[in-house]
Amino acid sequence: MRLGTPPKAPKKGLRVVALGGISEIGRNMTVFEYDGRLLIVDCGVLFPEDEQPGVDLILPDFSYIEDRMDDVEAVVLTHGHEDHIGALPFLLRLRPDVPVIGSKFTLALVAAKCREHRQRPKLMEVVEGETTTNGPFECEYFAVNHSIPDAIAVAIRTPAGVALHTGDIKLDQLPLDGRLTDLGGFSRLGDDGVDLFLVDSTNAEVPGFVMPEREIGGVLDGVIGKAKQRVIVASFASHVHRIQQVVDVAHRYNRRVAFVGRSMVRNMAIAQDLGYLSVPDGLIVDLDTAANLPDDRLVLISTGSQGEPLSALSRMARGEHRQINVRENDLVVLASSLIPGNENSVFAVVNGLAKRGASVITQQSAKVHVSGHASAGELLYLYNAVRPRNAMPVHGEWRHLRANAALAVATGVPEDRVVLAENGVVVDLVDGKAQITGQVPIGHVYVDGLSVGDVGESTLSDRLILGEGGFIAISVAIDTTTGRAVSTPQVSGRGFSDDPTALQGAAQLVEKELGNLAAEGVTDTHRIAQGVRRVVGRWVAEKYRRRPMIVPTVIGVE
Amino acid sequence: MRLGTPPKAPKKGLRVVALGGISEIGRNMTVFEYDGRLLIVDCGVLFPEDEQPGVDLILPDFSYIEDRMDDVEAVVLTHGHEDHIGALPFLLRLRPDVPVIGSKFTLALVAAKCREHRQRPKLMEVVEGETTTNGPFECEYFAVNHSIPDAIAVAIRTPAGVALHTGDIKLDQLPLDGRLTDLGGFSRLGDDGVDLFLVDSTNAEVPGFVMPEREIGGVLDGVIGKAKQRVIVASFASHVHRIQQVVDVAHRYNRRVAFVGRSMVRNMAIAQDLGYLSVPDGLIVDLDTAANLPDDRLVLISTGSQGEPLSALSRMARGEHRQINVRENDLVVLASSLIPGNENSVFAVVNGLAKRGASVITQQSAKVHVSGHASAGELLYLYNAVRPRNAMPVHGEWRHLRANAALAVATGVPEDRVVLAENGVVVDLVDGKAQITGQVPIGHVYVDGLSVGDVGESTLSDRLILGEGGFIAISVAIDTTTGRAVSTPQVSGRGFSDDPTALQGAAQLVEKELGNLAAEGVTDTHRIAQGVRRVVGRWVAEKYRRRPMIVPTVIGVE
Repeated sequence: MRLGTPPKAPKKGLRVVALGGISEIGRNMTVFEYDGRLLIVDCGVLFPEDEQPGVDLILPDFSYIEDRMDDVEAVVLTHGHEDHIGALPFLLRLRPDVPVIGSKFTLALVAAKCREHRQRPKLMEVVEGETTTNGPFECEYFAVNHSIPDAIAVAIRTPAGVALHTGDIKLDQLPLDGRLTDLGGFSRLGDDGVDLFLVDSTNAEVPGFVMPEREIGGVLDGVIGKAKQRVIVASFASHVHRIQQVVDVAHRYNRRVAFVGRSMVRNMAIAQDLGYLSVPDGLIVDLDTAANLPDDRLVLISTGSQGEPLSALSRMARGEHRQINVRENDLVVLASSLIPGNENSVFAVVNGLAKRGASVITQQSAKVHVSGHASAGELLYLYNAVRPRNAMPVHGEWRHLRANAALAVATGVPEDRVVLAENGVVVDLVDGKAQITGQVPIGHVYVDGLSVGDVGESTLSDRLILGEGGFIAISVAIDTTTGRAVSTPQVSGRGFSDDPTALQGAAQLVEKELGNLAAEGVTDTHRIAQGVRRVVGRWVAEKYRRRPMIVPTVIGVE
Repeated sequence: MRLGTPPKAPKKGLRVVALGGISEIGRNMTVFEYDGRLLIVDCGVLFPEDEQPGVDLILPDFSYIEDRMDDVEAVVLTHGHEDHIGALPFLLRLRPDVPVIGSKFTLALVAAKCREHRQRPKLMEVVEGETTTNGPFECEYFAVNHSIPDAIAVAIRTPAGVALHTGDIKLDQLPLDGRLTDLGGFSRLGDDGVDLFLVDSTNAEVPGFVMPEREIGGVLDGVIGKAKQRVIVASFASHVHRIQQVVDVAHRYNRRVAFVGRSMVRNMAIAQDLGYLSVPDGLIVDLDTAANLPDDRLVLISTGSQGEPLSALSRMARGEHRQINVRENDLVVLASSLIPGNENSVFAVVNGLAKRGASVITQQSAKVHVSGHASAGELLYLYNAVRPRNAMPVHGEWRHLRANAALAVATGVPEDRVVLAENGVVVDLVDGKAQITGQVPIGHVYVDGLSVGDVGESTLSDRLILGEGGFIAISVAIDTTTGRAVSTPQVSGRGFSDDPTALQGAAQLVEKELGNLAAEGVTDTHRIAQGVRRVVGRWVAEKYRRRPMIVPTVIGVE
């Protein structure tokens, strides 16, 4: 049920519309509007699921703003994860000089990404505590911790009120870099009054608190310290603190470290350059050097923790990696989450490694991963610090948003001040009250290969049919004056059967149908094609109880 | 790496070959051979994954035995789950009169299944403690508990030694029906000597013990007792004890119960008839009666706990169920496991229900599910009771088999007596020692619609390509004497692009290629098709960086 078209933006109100990221996890992008001017928070991608076969990426739907790019004062990026920055190059195609604001590490990742797209965006670095003025928006930045360094929250002050957007957040009280989420800052902001609080919902269903990242160091020490052979650790390529702890343990046990996988190598170089990752001289070696080290003197840190089939780890599991041959007694640690939907691929990797004789440690068997998102207990701290007048759960599917809303209510936010929205829902903050006033249509924008947007729902629905049942193609040439076939119908299937005789009988039916149609004087190739589709479809449904796509081609010959 | 062809079965040995169920979870089927005679334990199906699109079921590969069906003394079924009985109708096609042995509840489900296939198998009911003699195999049956009533383990005595197969097993010490896993019986068997112990590996990686099923009753009481509105509980349709507890709680709180979903209705009728499910008179109502009851007087017990898109629960979540309209404050309990690979579908259901305002309880938020398979702690009890000379982990992927093997070794089974096999690996027990002696090829046998086996790897690989990228079809009619086109080439795509102009430019390239080929005097339609495929494939790779299937059809016209 879609809501109605929203009214014109209220003159003295703050309008908030998410173009992605609520009712889903991914492609985060929120547009704030005041007095005709726009501020964007985040611009990420969503990774496709089974219902979106062949799609590389899913973008936020820019159509709400594409004619108004000149009204955009800035894009604020809360941190450097793909679901927050990945769509930026596509937004920059609409306006290359839009100012992009973020912290140092975030912008370094953005710059690297944009270089691959041959773009040079206008970057504006900020640090926590700083304020920028962007048209009618006064933005203040707060340190928050997450599973990547240098994440920020942003408070947006306008004459209509103050909105605070957490970005992705947790409240690690012993962060590895000592950079705490600025709960005190949120509290001071709350003293002044926060009108609308947009809060990360990812772990709102999970009771309690996320264990400090730091504790993983001890677990890794126990695991890697005992290992007799080669150790391979897989993790996200942007999780600098996780990797820092692996590096530290490797050093402690006199093992060298080699990074494996393009994004791991790239990001760790950036992190080292900028001082986010600290590595003793000579500890890091390249893969060729690593190949000549004894097994017990080496830790490989690799991408592929989600079982991505082309990743280094998957290739090792299949025995297809050019340089790394997993052997009996190797130890593989998946120091990573298991993102829902990736279970089959991840377990395929684990089974492949197990079959080669490696021991595999995952978060199921040891505490080698903690989440980057606040659990319910931490969210309560946030609500109690901020004491918002209105709350709007973001960054989550419906089940997460609802759980987060319940937490808001539990801390005293009135139920009618908790806005449960989805992508495209228009929320207007007027006179201190946030209300849903309508909805704009938000589609899925698919990137497939080089092009954006030409693959849509009809193509995907065809792919699903083809993927399930293949197709049967029937080609025939017709004399356009008589309607008679001038060739024997060719019937062939792909993705239908391995049996070369499977379609025997279909050609005869087609010939009969063509004869009937010709006898009726039908010469229209479109009508002939319809007739062919009908008889073949019926035949295959009856004989096989299957529904392949039926693709007739009738060529008119004069 | 496949092992070599096995030698002839040893004259005084027991040969064991799994045709399914090891190195995977599903399609369990193990063949025992002594003195030329065969005994089969279980005959189940495997449900397909993403790499097997469009497939309905995967069967064990019968080719190892299909020419020897007359040597089969009997099929023993350990319990009534699909992964243990689902392939039986397909085996019966090879020999309808093969004796099928199982417990009462198992055979009732088998009979119902076979009726749907219009088969009347030769069923032989046994109870725990009984012994049957089937050719050279003396089989003794033991009570075991699992997530379905009436499960059995089977000890197989032959002159070559005794094998004990657990089937699916756990050691609930407070089972709802009081029917304990017969650890004492296993121990007595162990006193006499067990030569080969085949053990369920599913939960070997999970430390500790499975909580008693009984405790779920208390949790359900708390949850359903507090509910103010309608309650919907989803569970597996064969999990009689789980459903018994839901029924009991419903009765306690003065709610009627309606079963929803074909298999739920069927199985619960069988369970009631045979006395496995006990229900107060008048408690069960049909859906039409249920529709007229107040919301707080009703519990619906439904299939669909795995998010199956056509199930009742999925339809409720999408608002498409004809009779049941989920509303604000409804309570939905998924009293079920979350089978890896089903996360996306299950969460889609949870989100759909949450969006309609229902509260959803899953095993993540409350203890509403326990596993049916022994955890590591229980497996240790089993090994210590049986003290086998040789152990062979079954029912698991590699990661599970390896974990189970480690438990065997920990209890004192010598490492070289623990057989880590996969499907098709031939294990010979000779002179009290089990050894791998070779491997027979085991394929995936796919059921798609009405036919078995005609969909193979080449069809699946085509489906994967079509599902990812669709296809581009090029049809052209050619004068077979000159090689010249007698029609304009028709170029069309399905599953390629929503943009009707996407393939503009391709037809022109094809015409040019046809002209070139004709100029070279090429009249062979196959060679012309190859030329067309090449130019279009190259064009699309360059312009779109995509790889749809290219399907040229060249019709020769004389």
